[in-house]
Amino acid sequence: MAIKLSEISTVEPKDAEKDRIKRRTEKYLVKIEDLQKKLYAEEKKALLVIFQGMDASGKDGAIKNIFRGLIPMGVNVHCFKKPTEEEFGHDFLWRVHHVVPRKGMIQIFNRSHYEDVLIQRVHKWIDEDTVKNRFEHINSFEKLLEDTGTRVLKFYLHISKEAQLERLLERKTNPEKHWKHNPDDMKERELWDDYMEAYEDCFKHCSEHATWHIIPADKNWYKEYLIAKYVCEALEEMDPQWPALVENEA
Amino acid sequence: MAIKLSEISTVEPKDAEKDRIKRRTEKYLVKIEDLQKKLYAEEKKALLVIFQGMDASGKDGAIKNIFRGLIPMGVNVHCFKKPTEEEFGHDFLWRVHHVVPRKGMIQIFNRSHYEDVLIQRVHKWIDEDTVKNRFEHINSFEKLLEDTGTRVLKFYLHISKEAQLERLLERKTNPEKHWKHNPDDMKERELWDDYMEAYEDCFKHCSEHATWHIIPADKNWYKEYLIAKYVCEALEEMDPQWPALVENEA
Repeated sequence: MAIKLSEISTVEPKDAEKDRIKRRTEKYLVKIEDLQKKLYAEEKKALLVIFQGMDASGKDGAIKNIFRGLIPMGVNVHCFKKPTEEEFGHDFLWRVHHVVPRKGMIQIFNRSHYEDVLIQRVHKWIDEDTVKNRFEHINSFEKLLEDTGTRVLKFYLHISKEAQLERLLERKTNPEKHWKHNPDDMKERELWDDYMEAYEDCFKHCSEHATWHIIPADKNWYKEYLIAKYVCEALEEMDPQWPALVENEA
Repeated sequence: MAIKLSEISTVEPKDAEKDRIKRRTEKYLVKIEDLQKKLYAEEKKALLVIFQGMDASGKDGAIKNIFRGLIPMGVNVHCFKKPTEEEFGHDFLWRVHHVVPRKGMIQIFNRSHYEDVLIQRVHKWIDEDTVKNRFEHINSFEKLLEDTGTRVLKFYLHISKEAQLERLLERKTNPEKHWKHNPDDMKERELWDDYMEAYEDCFKHCSEHATWHIIPADKNWYKEYLIAKYVCEALEEMDPQWPALVENEA
């Protein structure tokens, strides 16, 4: 899909009423909790939920608020940081493949293999041929997952440049957010337009086997509503079932 | 490549003289030792050597005799056994990807992801659509490795059904080989023709990014010669270089 992010709203539609939307989110969350128990018990399929977005786009908050009601044995979060030396010594999908969910599990990626065609591309640490080659390998990798029973959901949390500035500044004024403050974030912000282009290319080249959902994310209540909706719908489609009772014969 | 294994000799060519061949093997091994040191020091590329073959085709012996002169930090062997529950809970390439070599290393696979389209197919644990799908994913996986600096060498050790019987029987008579005796091997032997067909299909469908070498393996000295030759040639092509001296400036 060819997408211009600048043409997509970062806020909720005009007719969205906050209270009604929040009640709907609650309903989705209850359904997700029920479906997750079945997914875990059945052990036949898995769900991988990928979160991407600029700094302060609200990935952590989304993960916390959507998934905290789930049974912990059945859900994991993996944060992708700067690759270690061991990870750099392998192909870029090596560390990613290792942490995909086993059957029955929901795995959440806070950032992902897409960083290998985002930050690395924007900073020109890799050339454009490598970018194209990585798109191809990402598609093959996501097809492998889909073909073998893992549903892949990809969310891009879409915030405005202004909302980002506000949130980054809050990290300096609010003591509970100091730990999130990173002076480099302001430098990355200068590359905003390059990041937007790099994201648009991800949507264009890597939507073959798992679609991207672009989530207007300036308002947390609307962002959470949409994510809950898509996660719930994905689980409903996967349709996990309580396993039948196994009794030893007398 | 369309190949009929029954039309390919399992013994050395008529003009091969054992003594001369063994001297040549020795020369290749010396070169391999030298090239491996450079590969390890340079840390830019990796070599993956895959061994497949029927029971008693001489995989262990080949690995021992070709690679034992190498510096141990730079070489690893991974034996693929029956998948664990954790491994079965993931896609078939999950456990394989995890043990591919990092840059600088030689990794040896004693059996490999090809078992997922061999033993599993011959026993009909998977359907033919899954087999085709796996061929496709194997090709993408091997392309990923080749594209990211890992050379993949694949050896099929080709023995005759008679040679296999002789070797399997020796495992019952020679106390030093008792540990290799497995009564199931005789049962698998009954499926010989099915295995040959399944192997032929691997050569046909999975030679795109990494070629198969079919090694006449009834005679160990000839088998080892050919493997040493191909490993040496692959390393020569990879052309690893001693890194330049890095000195701190005064």
